[in-house]
Amino acid sequence: MKKQLDIVELLRHSRHDWLNKLQLIKGNIELDNLDRVKEIIEEMVFEAEYEAKLSNLKLPSLAAYLMTYNWESHKVFIEYEVLGEVQDLSKYDRSMINWTKSLIELLENSVHPNGNHHLNISIDIRNNDVRFFFDFRGIISEADKITLWVKNNNSEEQISITDYDLHTTEMSLEVSLL
Amino acid sequence: MKKQLDIVELLRHSRHDWLNKLQLIKGNIELDNLDRVKEIIEEMVFEAEYEAKLSNLKLPSLAAYLMTYNWESHKVFIEYEVLGEVQDLSKYDRSMINWTKSLIELLENSVHPNGNHHLNISIDIRNNDVRFFFDFRGIISEADKITLWVKNNNSEEQISITDYDLHTTEMSLEVSLL
Repeated sequence: MKKQLDIVELLRHSRHDWLNKLQLIKGNIELDNLDRVKEIIEEMVFEAEYEAKLSNLKLPSLAAYLMTYNWESHKVFIEYEVLGEVQDLSKYDRSMINWTKSLIELLENSVHPNGNHHLNISIDIRNNDVRFFFDFRGIISEADKITLWVKNNNSEEQISITDYDLHTTEMSLEVSLL
Repeated sequence: MKKQLDIVELLRHSRHDWLNKLQLIKGNIELDNLDRVKEIIEEMVFEAEYEAKLSNLKLPSLAAYLMTYNWESHKVFIEYEVLGEVQDLSKYDRSMINWTKSLIELLENSVHPNGNHHLNISIDIRNNDVRFFFDFRGIISEADKITLWVKNNNSEEQISITDYDLHTTEMSLEVSLL
C-alpha cells in the first residue's frame, strides 16, 4: 500500500513539473514567440538528458535524492548537470549520498531564511577522474559553520575536497572521487 | 536501496513518455503546423488531468497499476479517463484492483498474439453511483474464456457487472460499484 501511494505521489510531482513547462510553451505559442518556444524545448531536452545521465551513473541513492529534492519545501533550489560519457560509479553511491546530503543540510541551515538560494551541482566525468562541482549562489548567514564543516569532511575514504571558496553570496566546492 | 532504484526507474519511464510527446511538438513546430501543436498540447493537458483525477480518487493501488501499466511490455495498451468530480473511493481500492487486474490478465491471455489491442477504461462518477466502463478493441482469440470469467465474476461483494457485450474485435463491460 505504502509503495503504491509513493508511485502516485511521485508521478504527481513529475507531472506537475512537466505541465508547468508545457504551460510555458502554450503561452509562448499563443504570443507567437516561436523562438522562445524552441528555446524552452531545448532546455527541457537538456534537463531530461541530464536526468537520464544521472539515472545511468548507477548512483541510485544520489540520483533519487537529487531528482526529487525540489519537490519538497526547501530554502535551496538544486540544479544539476552531468558532463561526459556515462560510467558505472556504483562504488561511490553510499559515500556520495552521505556526503552530499550532509553538505546540502548544512547549506539549508546556513543560508538566510529569505532570499533565492541556488545550488548547481556539476558532475564531471569527461576525464579519467570523477569530479563534483558544487556552486552555490544565495545569501550565506553562517559562513563559519560551512568552513568548519569543510575542514572536518575533507578526508573521507573516497572523497577529497580539491577546491573551496566562500563569499557572502557565493560558495564553490570541488570534490574529487578517489 | 530497492526503493531508490524504483524512483529512478519510475522517473525514467515518465520522462520517456513526456519526451516522446515533446518530440512531437518539436517536429510540428519545425513543420510550422501550429494548429497540430496546439492539439497535441491540449491532448497532453487532458491526459494529465485524467491522471491527476485518477490520483485523487484515493484508489492508490488501482491508480498506480493503471498509470504504470503501459511501461511494461504487454499486448494490450491501456488508456483511461475520469468523468465527473473527484470523490473518495478508497473503500473500493482493494476490490477494484483485484477485479481489474484479473480482467486485464484475462484479456492479455485471450487476445491474438499479434495485432493492436486497446483497452479504454472510463471511470464515471458524474452521477451518484460509480461506474467503470471497459471498452476493448482488438482481436479476441478466446471469447469463451472471457464470457466464462464474466459469469464467474459477476457477483463480487462490491462489484456488479451491469452490461456485457462481446464480438471478435470488441468487448464492452460496464461495472457498477455498490
